[in-house]
Amino acid sequence: MRSFIGRDILSLKEFERQEFMRVFQVGKELEPIARDRRNSNLLQHKTLVAAFYQPSTRTRLAHEAAMHRLCGHVVGFADPKMTRAGDFYQESIKDTVKMLEYYGDVIVMRHFQQGAPHEAAKWASIPVINGGDGWGEHPTQILTDLYTVLQEKGRIDGLNWLAVGDMRMRTMHSLGYALSQFACPITFVAPPDMGLTEEFKTELRQYSVDFSEAEHVEQAIAKADVILVEPVVQPDYTKSRDERGREVALTPANYRITRELLTTKAKPDAILLHSLPRMDEIPTDVDITRWSRYWQEAFSGVVVRMALLALVLGAME
Amino acid sequence: MRSFIGRDILSLKEFERQEFMRVFQVGKELEPIARDRRNSNLLQHKTLVAAFYQPSTRTRLAHEAAMHRLCGHVVGFADPKMTRAGDFYQESIKDTVKMLEYYGDVIVMRHFQQGAPHEAAKWASIPVINGGDGWGEHPTQILTDLYTVLQEKGRIDGLNWLAVGDMRMRTMHSLGYALSQFACPITFVAPPDMGLTEEFKTELRQYSVDFSEAEHVEQAIAKADVILVEPVVQPDYTKSRDERGREVALTPANYRITRELLTTKAKPDAILLHSLPRMDEIPTDVDITRWSRYWQEAFSGVVVRMALLALVLGAME
Amino acid sequence: MRSFIGRDILSLKEFERQEFMRVFQVGKELEPIARDRRNSNLLQHKTLVAAFYQPSTRTRLAHEAAMHRLCGHVVGFADPKMTRAGDFYQESIKDTVKMLEYYGDVIVMRHFQQGAPHEAAKWASIPVINGGDGWGEHPTQILTDLYTVLQEKGRIDGLNWLAVGDMRMRTMHSLGYALSQFACPITFVAPPDMGLTEEFKTELRQYSVDFSEAEHVEQAIAKADVILVEPVVQPDYTKSRDERGREVALTPANYRITRELLTTKAKPDAILLHSLPRMDEIPTDVDITRWSRYWQEAFSGVVVRMALLALVLGAME
Repeated sequence: MRSFIGRDILSLKEFERQEFMRVFQVGKELEPIARDRRNSNLLQHKTLVAAFYQPSTRTRLAHEAAMHRLCGHVVGFADPKMTRAGDFYQESIKDTVKMLEYYGDVIVMRHFQQGAPHEAAKWASIPVINGGDGWGEHPTQILTDLYTVLQEKGRIDGLNWLAVGDMRMRTMHSLGYALSQFACPITFVAPPDMGLTEEFKTELRQYSVDFSEAEHVEQAIAKADVILVEPVVQPDYTKSRDERGREVALTPANYRITRELLTTKAKPDAILLHSLPRMDEIPTDVDITRWSRYWQEAFSGVVVRMALLALVLGAME
Repeated sequence: MRSFIGRDILSLKEFERQEFMRVFQVGKELEPIARDRRNSNLLQHKTLVAAFYQPSTRTRLAHEAAMHRLCGHVVGFADPKMTRAGDFYQESIKDTVKMLEYYGDVIVMRHFQQGAPHEAAKWASIPVINGGDGWGEHPTQILTDLYTVLQEKGRIDGLNWLAVGDMRMRTMHSLGYALSQFACPITFVAPPDMGLTEEFKTELRQYSVDFSEAEHVEQAIAKADVILVEPVVQPDYTKSRDERGREVALTPANYRITRELLTTKAKPDAILLHSLPRMDEIPTDVDITRWSRYWQEAFSGVVVRMALLALVLGAME
Repeated sequence: MRSFIGRDILSLKEFERQEFMRVFQVGKELEPIARDRRNSNLLQHKTLVAAFYQPSTRTRLAHEAAMHRLCGHVVGFADPKMTRAGDFYQESIKDTVKMLEYYGDVIVMRHFQQGAPHEAAKWASIPVINGGDGWGEHPTQILTDLYTVLQEKGRIDGLNWLAVGDMRMRTMHSLGYALSQFACPITFVAPPDMGLTEEFKTELRQYSVDFSEAEHVEQAIAKADVILVEPVVQPDYTKSRDERGREVALTPANYRITRELLTTKAKPDAILLHSLPRMDEIPTDVDITRWSRYWQEAFSGVVVRMALLALVLGAME
């Protein structure tokens, strides 16, 4: 297993099985710090640079909270318009990174453009963590999902997955690459115009991912141990919400995980994940069912980022 | 007296006399840290989550400064547009709080909607401090005012108050509830369309607040020991400012505390409070008179938030 | 030499030679902290207030990063719209500063209005650092440039400067005042409408600065030891960029430092500075030439701010 010290976290394509397990193991070791709500001094001499070119709540705050849980420091920007990187100069990634690398010891970057964190990593002398790049990948989110699964089910291998959402999205890419390292069959359910691309399907086959596709969540939910849901409603749908009236569900039934569906069809010990925010693909009355685990993901999200930061900064070997 | 550990600070309605005094006592104990400008380690293992859904300078920065004075950590947002909470998802308070509670150990929330921090407190496993909720309340501001009075006058009981401003505002609500715990008669002066609501008057009577109303500050200033002023000018007045010319006062004389008024009518030892920012309800030539205490409020504002944070986080019992 | 403790850093006009050297000396002492990427505890009990009324990346983040490198704390705002200082109240500098001074121990202010930090310093009981004020000055940037020169060339005296850009800009003012303390002849090259003002020329003569003007960089580059470049392209030029096509250089040849120009005309040991961001006044193929030192400036920028903060806060005498 390669060392994590100084390493960029850009894609789960580059992660092998042992590396996933090492991240989860370090997460487990550091978890008590977050659970006991008592920040540790592990990274008190290190600074995280948060470079967010797109709005983000969970990814940005989870990284920052993780850094603070380890008594580290944080600088950066949540809004590129408030920097020269977002104004008329449209400064290149190279120029920006050749500056940011001196302001801290690790960079987490979200960017609207696929590959931007990779470009940053090319120039930075410090590790770059991909906090989501366009349609590309979102590795720390999927690490969070897998960590949550491991804590809740005690294992990752042998679990059946059902993934619902827009299959062109970055989380789905990271998920596919991640599952290639585990014995986890997965069924994808997506609207026709949001299906897996042929290119990605080819790649999944090359990575030996045991995947299938279905049209309706009803067809796949019965055998699922892990149900991962993302929104399929597009931003512009919100305008028609009021016109249609409040009673009309935005999300078509094919892609909704309702309480009734869970109660009648799901395994009693299946777990339901969502990175949030949500539209109505998971109605709020699901929140207190035995299946919901999406609240726990916010907690896991901090723990996994603590582990990643501690590893790439060399505070944990 | 109930313990402050883990407690939400939502409304001064819930504060009893002893609890006010406990906050002020802890404030007095911690004040030297702020005065000597030497941050203490009291909260070095704790993180504050600042969730500001509306612009704020003083309330946000005073909480953050207080946390830093105690070597604590801060995460959060000053602008909801830079989060998913403010975009098209319009994420519910519940969904947002079920995330934020894992990012730190206490939340301070400002929200344009009355009751939003109460809703947050319903779901959060950590304390929620109300940093101002719509027309609702602004408890930490009024605690700051009372602390300033206590430091400047040596007591709270037995002082006569004059409050000028928009009586429908959140600070006035918190003020009314607070004075119910002290022997402080109060006179309210407000424009006719900004007067006390019948509902709030009924409530003040139930809380045994000794209050009266006047039309002009001249009628009430002579007996006042504490004069608390808020703006009565509405945002849209600014547009007509330049058209009318600079010489025209925006604030009608009834609601202005001028140097002349203070010199001719006020008690020599009265004190003048304003949470700022101001329009021209207190002209700048009042700044260096013996009555002005509004600069001190910024200092008190940090001290009171230090006390509240130390108490709810259990660093002071 | 006057003590730096509690001192405002508003203008390089007020700096004498020994004071420049003291800042650079402290920078040199603190530099290993930044180079070794291991934050020191020097300012762990101090808080920096960042008051940015205009977008900034480098100046804001370099000050914040410097504070964190010394384990200090940071509060403030990067966007005045998110504060009451930027909304309809248009709060005065005085009112704002009489608040900010209690939120920390030193203020760094960028303002669109020349003289705003000076006005702030008039009212603040804590040091104010000018982070750039309109057309006024940008002292910490020029200190960074000089520090970079000193590190790269081993000395400041006796070096020939060439400065290219808009001579009405704040950095040029600070540069002129700074060079008055050293034996450094300087040639200014600027578009006709961006030339040195008569007023500033008179001032430079009074300060005994040995300066001349040229129309084209070619006329002055051969004898330059230090080439400092700023953009001459105005924001509204960006719109015509696409219309003209990508191949057309935005910056006229008179004000561009190209690889060819450097190779054919520049001294082999000259150094090229730019505070960035850039348009195309320095094409990217210059980045890997022996002359470029603009990446190092980001590092120097943190070091110089560490020195200034440590000095004005009394952590270094």
